[in-house]
Amino acid sequence: MKKINTVAIIGAGLIGGAFGMALLKQKMADRVIGLGRNEARLKKALKLGALTEYSLDYWILGEADLVFMATPVNNIRELLFGIGPYLKAGAIVTDGGSTKAEIVCAANKYLPLYTYFIGSHPIAGSEKSGVQFASADLFKGSVCAVTPDKLTNKIALKKVSNIWKALGAKVVMLSPVEHDKVLAFTSHLPHFVAAAMSLSVIKRDKNRRALTGKGFKDTTRIAASSPEIWAEIALANRKNICASLKNFLLQTSRLEKAIKRRKSKEIVRLLRQAKTKRDSL
Amino acid sequence: MKKINTVAIIGAGLIGGAFGMALLKQKMADRVIGLGRNEARLKKALKLGALTEYSLDYWILGEADLVFMATPVNNIRELLFGIGPYLKAGAIVTDGGSTKAEIVCAANKYLPLYTYFIGSHPIAGSEKSGVQFASADLFKGSVCAVTPDKLTNKIALKKVSNIWKALGAKVVMLSPVEHDKVLAFTSHLPHFVAAAMSLSVIKRDKNRRALTGKGFKDTTRIAASSPEIWAEIALANRKNICASLKNFLLQTSRLEKAIKRRKSKEIVRLLRQAKTKRDSL
Repeated sequence: MKKINTVAIIGAGLIGGAFGMALLKQKMADRVIGLGRNEARLKKALKLGALTEYSLDYWILGEADLVFMATPVNNIRELLFGIGPYLKAGAIVTDGGSTKAEIVCAANKYLPLYTYFIGSHPIAGSEKSGVQFASADLFKGSVCAVTPDKLTNKIALKKVSNIWKALGAKVVMLSPVEHDKVLAFTSHLPHFVAAAMSLSVIKRDKNRRALTGKGFKDTTRIAASSPEIWAEIALANRKNICASLKNFLLQTSRLEKAIKRRKSKEIVRLLRQAKTKRDSL
Repeated sequence: MKKINTVAIIGAGLIGGAFGMALLKQKMADRVIGLGRNEARLKKALKLGALTEYSLDYWILGEADLVFMATPVNNIRELLFGIGPYLKAGAIVTDGGSTKAEIVCAANKYLPLYTYFIGSHPIAGSEKSGVQFASADLFKGSVCAVTPDKLTNKIALKKVSNIWKALGAKVVMLSPVEHDKVLAFTSHLPHFVAAAMSLSVIKRDKNRRALTGKGFKDTTRIAASSPEIWAEIALANRKNICASLKNFLLQTSRLEKAIKRRKSKEIVRLLRQAKTKRDSL
């Protein structure tokens, strides 16, 4: 694919840092400029090979052919409101936010007509954050959702999709609204369930800690994610997340009632249904 | 430690098979006899090196110095009712059941006074079952709960603990009742939550499947466990599991309400508390 002259990454953390590392490793970009508010973090990203330079001044965005926003979702919306005047004509703007409907809506509203926004969501994060956990291979074998709508420019859409593919991701295309509905179940729900499970463990004694098996550790791993980032996601995808939590509470209650009433056959039936669904993944 | 002459393993699946493999690998036993109802499975266990011989006839239990029961929990209780007359004087009997109160109670009630029962629960299982997934190293680095009560013989307790330690497990000692209380939270709850989460996913389209990240896969991994085994565990530890599910439902509702009402600070507070608890594992 054609090389990109200048890429700007706003927020060089786990996802932004990995994006820069991967572009540079594959020689897909000449310049990768990091932008942000925290100079120490940008210096670290530069040192780790995620950037070729950095700046604290948004005027440098005028030099970027591609802008990647990899900050928490609320910040992406604020950026979309603010970065318009700095962008050059023809610039392609994309992001790494975990929710898409509000972000695409903000982009359509605030970005100048001579720029092209494509919503992206690389599903490659973990409970860890920070550029120190980034690697050039982070997107290899991962899935990246790309979310066009009616206003999306087809050429820019193709370009952004091709970049994700070149970084090793499988691209899944769907509308921003559909994206948020699906992700509420497959990604956001597990986070809040893991958090609730972690909350429900009463730290009573050393036995409880010693007797915690792999099952508990796996099911609560993502409860260690950043509370601030996930609170933002919760509000940005509120309705879908509440619907998925409601459905989940219903299923849990069904199981609880079956156990309480000693309905052995009903328990087996529910667990078998759960196993069939899980095995089909 | 002193070599055991003859070990009998009832149920040579994942746990029973690994027990035999580990004993034989470390030359801790001369004979390891497999017992069960399914000859094909016993043949497989023999072929895989988990046994030195097998039998379908319970009379052979009279030759065993150590009996290990590694069948589902209901079956362990049935065995305790039935195997008494076959055991030789001084035989040590232990098990690998995931619940302990009912099992230890049945052992105290039914086993002859000239035999010694020690309840064990090696926390080394997975969502897989069958001797084909067993290995001699399964217990290395794992935790094994050993659950003495007032009637437990101290010498037999020491012997069984030493066997688990020799197989690489860290032994945690606690009463059968306390064991079931703790495990309801740290092991049984995650299983039913994973099942409920798997149940709550409505299979709507290919997008949902394509967009399922590592978070969802980890949190539902154990939903693929055997429905029959877990239905038995649910009933054997009914009260504790219902209490833990109730507490979990409460925590989930708190989160759901905070999201529904857009209480950003409350969401962050709950997620932070969850993270602190998870990080402390």
